[in-house]
Amino acid sequence: MTKTYYYTASSLDGFIADARHSLEWLFQFGDVEETSYPEFIKEIGAVAMGAHTYEWLLENLPPESPWPYEQPVWVFSSRALPLIPEADIRLVRGDVKSVHTDMRAAAGKNSIWIVGGGDLVGQFYDAGLLDEMIVQYAPVFLGSGKPLFPREVITPPLECTLVQRYGPFTEMRLRLPKPMQAD
Amino acid sequence: MTKTYYYTASSLDGFIADARHSLEWLFQFGDVEETSYPEFIKEIGAVAMGAHTYEWLLENLPPESPWPYEQPVWVFSSRALPLIPEADIRLVRGDVKSVHTDMRAAAGKNSIWIVGGGDLVGQFYDAGLLDEMIVQYAPVFLGSGKPLFPREVITPPLECTLVQRYGPFTEMRLRLPKPMQAD
Repeated sequence: MTKTYYYTASSLDGFIADARHSLEWLFQFGDVEETSYPEFIKEIGAVAMGAHTYEWLLENLPPESPWPYEQPVWVFSSRALPLIPEADIRLVRGDVKSVHTDMRAAAGKNSIWIVGGGDLVGQFYDAGLLDEMIVQYAPVFLGSGKPLFPREVITPPLECTLVQRYGPFTEMRLRLPKPMQAD
Repeated sequence: MTKTYYYTASSLDGFIADARHSLEWLFQFGDVEETSYPEFIKEIGAVAMGAHTYEWLLENLPPESPWPYEQPVWVFSSRALPLIPEADIRLVRGDVKSVHTDMRAAAGKNSIWIVGGGDLVGQFYDAGLLDEMIVQYAPVFLGSGKPLFPREVITPPLECTLVQRYGPFTEMRLRLPKPMQAD
């Protein structure tokens, strides 16, 4: 069954990037030998991300390395962005609902991954379209930056279904309740 | 050996209280049957907290229930606060170092607990006096509020020594590096 996931690393204080949209704080941990990523990405048929996440990727991919996604990638942006010739990238703007419908169609039996940022993920949540979060907490405090999930979700709470450790990271899998206004 | 701990619950986005210093979001989980608290508090010989935490306790303790700490409690406050007759409460202000010296003396072989808030804990960290954090992450997002630990600790990172689940909570034990300026 197609699910919509938010899969991301976060600091202990709930920031996914520093104030300059950088993930530099994450790189010190290097490549963790075993992670949940290979299993996760196998089940993904469509990817979405915000403009900042996409631009960060463009700037930080090593020059020789290929675009990391085989799946079609929807990039939410209100401005024009450079494209990558060999990659299936679709620039979109506006309402997440119609994009989600297109993503479902493309994903088939596979699932959907909203890479970030937090506010884009929040828009999918607001529309009742976000099923689960998979968060790798890195043992750092950023003190400020881009929030993991700039929403209030208190009652009902999320449901933590699995906790696993991967090297220095603690991964939590969290099922989201539907937002009140979507019922 | 005496250690100085920060033991606290936090939201997934790193807030220990909402904007009104309230812990209401935490109460929906009720009493979790098994927690690390009984073992933890047994080893504690001195407690410190900020004025907001103390006032919150005063306002929210059920009328019949006794003051919850047998240990001496240092309350950091720049203003006068009501005391509780049967409790060993010491109002202090200013530098955490000299208070920590007094707390060590009172704790003997036992350890020290900084209850919160986050900024008071940060001051102990800044002075090189904080050893470990024990954080119970509750499966909620507050979106805003009082930060768990308003500091930047990136390189070296913290060291996650233990992860345990208690009902809906995921507890991480984290060893802190010494702050740069304290070396």
